[in-house]
Amino acid sequence: MRRSRAFIPTTKEAPSDATLPSHQFLVRGGFINQQGSGLYNFMPLGKIVLEKIRRVVKEELDKAGCNEVQLSFITPISLWDRSGRADTMGKEMLRISDRHDADFVLSPTNEEAMVELVKNRVNSYKDLPLNLYQINTKFRDEARPRYGLLRGREFLMKDAYSFHASKEDMIREFDLMEATYKKIFTRLGLDFRVVQADSGAIGGEGSKEFHVLADSGEDTIVICDACDYGANIEKIFDTEEEVNALNEKSYEELSEKTIDEKCSCGGNLSFKKGIEVGHIFQLGDRYSSSLEAKFNDENGKPKAFEMATFGIGVSRLVASVIEQNHDENGCIWTKETAPYMVNIMVSNIKDEAQTELGEKLYSELQDKNVEVILDDRKERFGFKMKDAELIGFPYTIIIGKELVNGLVQIYDRKTTEKTSVSVDEVMSKIMDII
Amino acid sequence: MRRSRAFIPTTKEAPSDATLPSHQFLVRGGFINQQGSGLYNFMPLGKIVLEKIRRVVKEELDKAGCNEVQLSFITPISLWDRSGRADTMGKEMLRISDRHDADFVLSPTNEEAMVELVKNRVNSYKDLPLNLYQINTKFRDEARPRYGLLRGREFLMKDAYSFHASKEDMIREFDLMEATYKKIFTRLGLDFRVVQADSGAIGGEGSKEFHVLADSGEDTIVICDACDYGANIEKIFDTEEEVNALNEKSYEELSEKTIDEKCSCGGNLSFKKGIEVGHIFQLGDRYSSSLEAKFNDENGKPKAFEMATFGIGVSRLVASVIEQNHDENGCIWTKETAPYMVNIMVSNIKDEAQTELGEKLYSELQDKNVEVILDDRKERFGFKMKDAELIGFPYTIIIGKELVNGLVQIYDRKTTEKTSVSVDEVMSKIMDII
Repeated sequence: MRRSRAFIPTTKEAPSDATLPSHQFLVRGGFINQQGSGLYNFMPLGKIVLEKIRRVVKEELDKAGCNEVQLSFITPISLWDRSGRADTMGKEMLRISDRHDADFVLSPTNEEAMVELVKNRVNSYKDLPLNLYQINTKFRDEARPRYGLLRGREFLMKDAYSFHASKEDMIREFDLMEATYKKIFTRLGLDFRVVQADSGAIGGEGSKEFHVLADSGEDTIVICDACDYGANIEKIFDTEEEVNALNEKSYEELSEKTIDEKCSCGGNLSFKKGIEVGHIFQLGDRYSSSLEAKFNDENGKPKAFEMATFGIGVSRLVASVIEQNHDENGCIWTKETAPYMVNIMVSNIKDEAQTELGEKLYSELQDKNVEVILDDRKERFGFKMKDAELIGFPYTIIIGKELVNGLVQIYDRKTTEKTSVSVDEVMSKIMDII
Repeated sequence: MRRSRAFIPTTKEAPSDATLPSHQFLVRGGFINQQGSGLYNFMPLGKIVLEKIRRVVKEELDKAGCNEVQLSFITPISLWDRSGRADTMGKEMLRISDRHDADFVLSPTNEEAMVELVKNRVNSYKDLPLNLYQINTKFRDEARPRYGLLRGREFLMKDAYSFHASKEDMIREFDLMEATYKKIFTRLGLDFRVVQADSGAIGGEGSKEFHVLADSGEDTIVICDACDYGANIEKIFDTEEEVNALNEKSYEELSEKTIDEKCSCGGNLSFKKGIEVGHIFQLGDRYSSSLEAKFNDENGKPKAFEMATFGIGVSRLVASVIEQNHDENGCIWTKETAPYMVNIMVSNIKDEAQTELGEKLYSELQDKNVEVILDDRKERFGFKMKDAELIGFPYTIIIGKELVNGLVQIYDRKTTEKTSVSVDEVMSKIMDII
């Protein structure tokens, strides 16, 4: 992509309500913009990042044997009446009426629709297990949308629902999805923890959350420094007051609070702030029983499906990457999430040698299937450099004054170090580090 | 994919309201199912086809220099007030209110949102032209949803909006998009015609529609047998009565009607039925003027953008492929749209030699990146064959009784011919024809 032909409207001003780095930098970097309260548009760079995350999620789920589907976003209220959730979902589930006054909802989640899809279509234990997922729009009418993509109303979610003949098999799938989620978040380059969690409105028995560690996280978790143990404080403290009091503390305040109790492994426990990006639940027959979704077991007897459900906040992950990876100048994308891996900056486009080398590297990197953008704009060097830092391309090849001595620089966005490299070596050097 | 592990719930019964082949066969073949009036779920096979079509559309648009974005599906009514369309869009645009009684709509199209996105972000003629597209959910509250995916309420649409400094440049992009659309529909294997069209509710000056020729099409078009000329009858006949009278006729009735007038090239004109799958419009400054979206021209003077808009019905294309390609037994997918290119049918899975060959071919075809499904179900041959015809895989390798003589058959879904091939040659033969 040539920067001169791209639509990447960077700006100095952040929205007045943007308190978090991801909100500020994603808007300022031209990734997203607000369409209304809790409603966001993805501009070209934001759309590229979103699709990269979607692809990683899809690839790992497909490898684990899941089947992708796509359910209607608008669902009839009758579905929710049958499960009993029409009354319990509260105002976050937005009800709408069509021209014939029939009632629908903007789907906030899809347990009911997925059970109805499988009901009477999967009739035998021989057709189980089955894990169906979608990566689709959801809507939750938050009372106070905030924090940009982290707490929007319309968002992109991966929601999966699995169906089993026995509780044992459901737990096997639950463990497989825990392992799959770890692969997904590891590939995305995130520092995360799996924690024991409350099940909330979804209901069911066992549940785990996946938290991206970030000082700005809304949730408070407890983790062990010696083993894998982690828990949402909702799971540990008895009263909502205790939980709310801890959640209201900043990361700095929290780190002063010590936990006297030790982990069962003997390790020390400490508080961390986290952003919930995944949640897996053991549902049991909560929905299959109420919706009378049954299969015939080995003895020919009808039995309600054992179920589990698995969510990932796909658009929320875009912001989570930045909450964990940024500095005062802007975004620092991980390799799997970067909109472009290499930015080639021609410092002075009136300098023929600089422009020529820029075009040459651009074409060579494209031939090697590297995602590359050429900053060929007629702007000052300082302006273009600030822009590159704000957007956060992992590497920038700076073609500047030193070219007369046969040198260019490679700027590493993460370390902010610039390394001089000879023109002859720049291609092999960049191919090594990306 | 192993058929025994796939979720492809085929069925003998079509919905009682399904009058069209695509509606009947897509439901019976386990591609889609109805969630509510005009609301459809895509099951795994349907989702694969939908994504294949989406990918072809995206690849060709990206090659033509368009930039992908993703706008919020829920949009504030204020956007539509400013353009004046809040009053003119009618009941198809569904209004909703959130918990704070703020008013929104389920986006039926996105001219306003796209103009607002570009306004104040593109300020100079130097940043033009710009063509932004999305492939995203739309909703139109049809009074009488019918024909399955062809006239649903929630659907997947590619909508693009281009911005230009001059009318000449806008027309250049209009022509480029006409050429790009032709590439897309050709790649999808469709027999289609480009026709002159009325502009309808979108407004603007020049407009062309892309129709997939199908006897069941809702639209009536006139085409020439000697040149490229084509027109929607809305463009030719003066009164709505004349147009409605023709649209109500079936393809058979229409073909009896002759057109006395000749095409300007001298060719003969005849009526055809078509399904509208694409529409391109020259908008001019209809939206940029009313929304005050301006750029500075070469003389530094503010000027409203010249615009064009380009739509493709992505989910409608899934059904259009089948309206044009089916027989009495089911779907016949084209090569670019087939959910799997090759179906390997083991006639009797208790026969070890048959199963072994099936597994071997399955593994070899996967190694060659062929999209292949192995029908390893414990079902009768006739049942599996009917299923393969209903779903419409382009080729089925039948491993049956003749294996003892070293022979298998290749079944061609389009010609319905079965060809005997020696086991040694089947791989090279199938690689040749796919």
